[in-house]
Order: sequence, then structure tokens, then C-alpha cells
Amino acid sequence: MTDALHPLDAAVTFSPAADGALAGRTSPAYWNMVGPFGGVTAAQLLKAAIDHPARIGEPVAQTVNFCAPIAEGDFSIRVKEVRSGRSVQHLYAELVQGETIAANATMVFARRSETWRHHASAMPEAPPPEAVPVLGRKPPLAWLDAYEFRYVTGLPVMGNQAHATPQSAKSLIWVADQPPRPLDHVSLAALCDIFIVRVFQVRGLRTPAATVSMTSYFHADAAELAEQGTRPVLAKADSVRFGDQFHDQQAELWSAAGKLLATTSQVVWFRE
Amino acid sequence: MTDALHPLDAAVTFSPAADGALAGRTSPAYWNMVGPFGGVTAAQLLKAAIDHPARIGEPVAQTVNFCAPIAEGDFSIRVKEVRSGRSVQHLYAELVQGETIAANATMVFARRSETWRHHASAMPEAPPPEAVPVLGRKPPLAWLDAYEFRYVTGLPVMGNQAHATPQSAKSLIWVADQPPRPLDHVSLAALCDIFIVRVFQVRGLRTPAATVSMTSYFHADAAELAEQGTRPVLAKADSVRFGDQFHDQQAELWSAAGKLLATTSQVVWFRE
Repeated sequence: MTDALHPLDAAVTFSPAADGALAGRTSPAYWNMVGPFGGVTAAQLLKAAIDHPARIGEPVAQTVNFCAPIAEGDFSIRVKEVRSGRSVQHLYAELVQGETIAANATMVFARRSETWRHHASAMPEAPPPEAVPVLGRKPPLAWLDAYEFRYVTGLPVMGNQAHATPQSAKSLIWVADQPPRPLDHVSLAALCDIFIVRVFQVRGLRTPAATVSMTSYFHADAAELAEQGTRPVLAKADSVRFGDQFHDQQAELWSAAGKLLATTSQVVWFRE
Repeated sequence: MTDALHPLDAAVTFSPAADGALAGRTSPAYWNMVGPFGGVTAAQLLKAAIDHPARIGEPVAQTVNFCAPIAEGDFSIRVKEVRSGRSVQHLYAELVQGETIAANATMVFARRSETWRHHASAMPEAPPPEAVPVLGRKPPLAWLDAYEFRYVTGLPVMGNQAHATPQSAKSLIWVADQPPRPLDHVSLAALCDIFIVRVFQVRGLRTPAATVSMTSYFHADAAELAEQGTRPVLAKADSVRFGDQFHDQQAELWSAAGKLLATTSQVVWFRE
């Protein structure tokens, strides 16, 4: 690693470990409350799969399960080839610290080829990013400084006082890596987790909470992501049902050119 | 198995196999075009996890990857305990035929306890199921006879002629097991896959297509599902982007009492 490396690229730089595993280390630039930002873990698992010698094609789907807190320090990622067809491949990965599987992931890769194309709905309406102020006041978490947020709606809750009535679960945000970094599947996988926990926003209270499982589908190939460059993506999130310690979240990430880059969902654990 | 067993219960009945695996068999009642209906595979993987001796609590999340065609006949399911916390547990399962991992799944179980509750949006508007005719004319696939469909909108495409312009990707359906069966997590996991491939509906053409990966989040506990009984659930699906061999699908399943029972998404492979 050199000083010139973007923090995300540093976070997904591995060295060979025993039995074909990859050795990595948690990134201070993406630290959250009590462990890494989930998005960087997703990016690390995706990059480990991309680095697998048998990998074919480009990422299509990823499910990451956050099984245990990831401690600051070293980890290893083991990637298993589950099944490789002619054009579609399934991989499984585990991120391990000591005896603990702290995260696992299933991933689908494919050699995509051109077919019929259609966008059934348009990009959400939003003013251009230049017209939306950059979020200045943020909760003091390192990973929030790894992104530039321009909230169109659904600003993060800063206080810790229950709203009189539940607020909307929706947020619409222009977001980009900070420092700027050209978009690729690794950064897109991380961006799928940039929504601050919906239950905080809806309720006004910040109780303990954590993503338990996150699924992302990638609809753009590497060439289309490269066209996006460092411009912000438009990120939209919503949730429906909160209760008995869990809630859902559905989200979409759109390119500056108005194309759906990723759909992503997660189930979030919360207390009280 | 006895004649009295519901076809879904027969499909998820296993016998012990070597090394703690479970031996099962594909179900003719849930046969699709060239393999089983994906929903019954999801139900089998979930039931195998429920049957695991170390399993705690109730299902919260499941991601199923359809890695290879499942051939008619025997299979075995191996379930691995990935990580068990005090109240949340992660399991991983593989469905194997011979040397082939034909499907795999990650699953989250939890001992849920009461927290703050909120429904951020209401059930989609629909006439009551009694007011919607049962779908009579269906493509000739066994699994379609394992459900009673009442389409509110977005009827399945029966012909094979491209629409002049793409049609809506949305469907809204009252659906129930046929023969009737009280709802539980196993049948809910299967119901998450009851939407006929969106690209057929949007395009009018039925080209080869298959679900590659499906994720379902279960928002109701066993007691709430039991209250639903055998009444139809309201199932809503939509897709946004089609192209380069894949499209997304997002869906929700609602109880007769107006509660969100499950959110589910999938990525679908298609040709041409």
C-alpha cells in the first residue's frame, strides 16, 4: 500500500494467506460505531471473489451476512467456487477472524452479453447534485467522512429524542466517494450500504442497531460504471415494517445518466 | 409419507443421510419447465435449516442461489452452522445432486422479542379475494396448479408474441396454496417465488429464463402466520431494469389482516 492509494483500494488490498485464503485488515477510514461500515465489508468480500483465480465475468449479485462484530485488525477471506456454468458462476466467501466467521457472502458472476433492454421506470425526480448542499453536520463516525452526501430528502437524525409521530422512512441522496474515486463494482457494493439506519430516522431515537443481511444486484457492467466516473449516484431508500427487533430496507442506486445501477435490500436488527 | 400429507409437506420431508445431511426428493407437484419451481427449493432449504439440531428461533432472512438445474430425483441437503449469537443465528446450506451443488442458501434465524412496532406504508389497495376471479387458464406447468391465483392486475402472458410497446412489470395477486394449507414460514418462503417471470409479461415473449438468486425477509413470527390460516396473501411484484441477460424483481407479500409478511427480491437470467 502507498499513500497514493484511495482508502477503498487500500481496504480491498489483500496478501496471499494459507490454503489459498486472502489476508486483509480492517480500514480505519471506514470505521463505524463498533466495527467496520458494512459497505466496506461487502466491498472486501466482492473484491476477494473478483481476485479468485477461477472467477469469470462481472458481478451480478451479492448477499452479505454480518454474522459477528468484526474486530479492528487482521482477517482472512476464503472464497469457494460453488458452481461455474458457461456464463454464470456462483461463489461463496467467508471472512474469518480467529475461529469466528464474522461475515459470509454468496455471489453471482456472469459473462454478460447483449439482450433486449428496457427501463420500466424512470430515475426518481431530484435537483441536480450541484443544487443540493453537501451535508456538513454528521454523526462523528469515520465512514461518514468517506462519502460526500447531498440529501434531497430524509436528512439523518442528529438528536436522540423520539419523534411525536413516526417520520417517513424515505431518503433520497446524491452520494459519492470522498476522496473522489471512479465508480466500479467494488465501490458500488459499498455504496449499497450508505443509508443511515432507517429506524433512527423514522423513530428519532438511536438505539443499538446493525444490518444483519444485505443483498445487492448490479445492473451495469464495468464499462457503464466507468462512464459514471466520479460523479455522485442518486440513492433512494425506504422501509415498510419495523417490529420484534427487525426491519426491512429497500434501495436503488441510479447513475448520473439516469440508469439503475443497483437494487439493494437489507434486514436490520434493532433493540428496544 | 402418507396420502394425507400436503404436497408441500411431502416435498420438505427428509430422511437422515451420511455425515448429518438430509436426503430428499424432488416433488412432481411443484415441477416447472425443466426443474422444480424455485419456491419449493427455497422451502426445502429453509425446512432443512429448521430441522438442524443447533437451530434457534424463527426464520428472518433467506437467500437462495439457483446454481444448476435440479434433476428429477434424489438430492441431499447439508446445513452448516456459521455463527450462533445469543439471539441471532446464521446458517448456510447446500443442496447437492451427485457432485453438483445445485442450490445454496444463507439463512438468518432469530429468537425475536417485542420492540417498537411500526408499519410505514399501508397494504396495496385491492378488492377482497372473493371479488377477484380465480385464474383458470394457466400455462401447463404442475407448480401453477399448486396455487390458487386471483390476479388483480398484471395477468400472466399466455401467447408468445412481442407486445408493440413494453407492458407494465407490475402484478398484484391474491394467492393461496392449493390444496389449502395453513401459512407457515416454509410455505411463505415458497410463496416468495410465485411471480411468473417479469420479462415475459413486459415483453410478451417467453424466451428461456430462470431465477438466479432470490432473497426473502420474513417479518412475521409463527403465531402471526398461524392467524392468517389458509386465506390468500396479497402478493405484489415489480421490476425496473432489463438488459444484458438479467433483470431485477422486487416483491411484497401481505396478510389478509393488512400486515407485511415478507419482502423479497430476485435477479432473473433471460436469453435474447
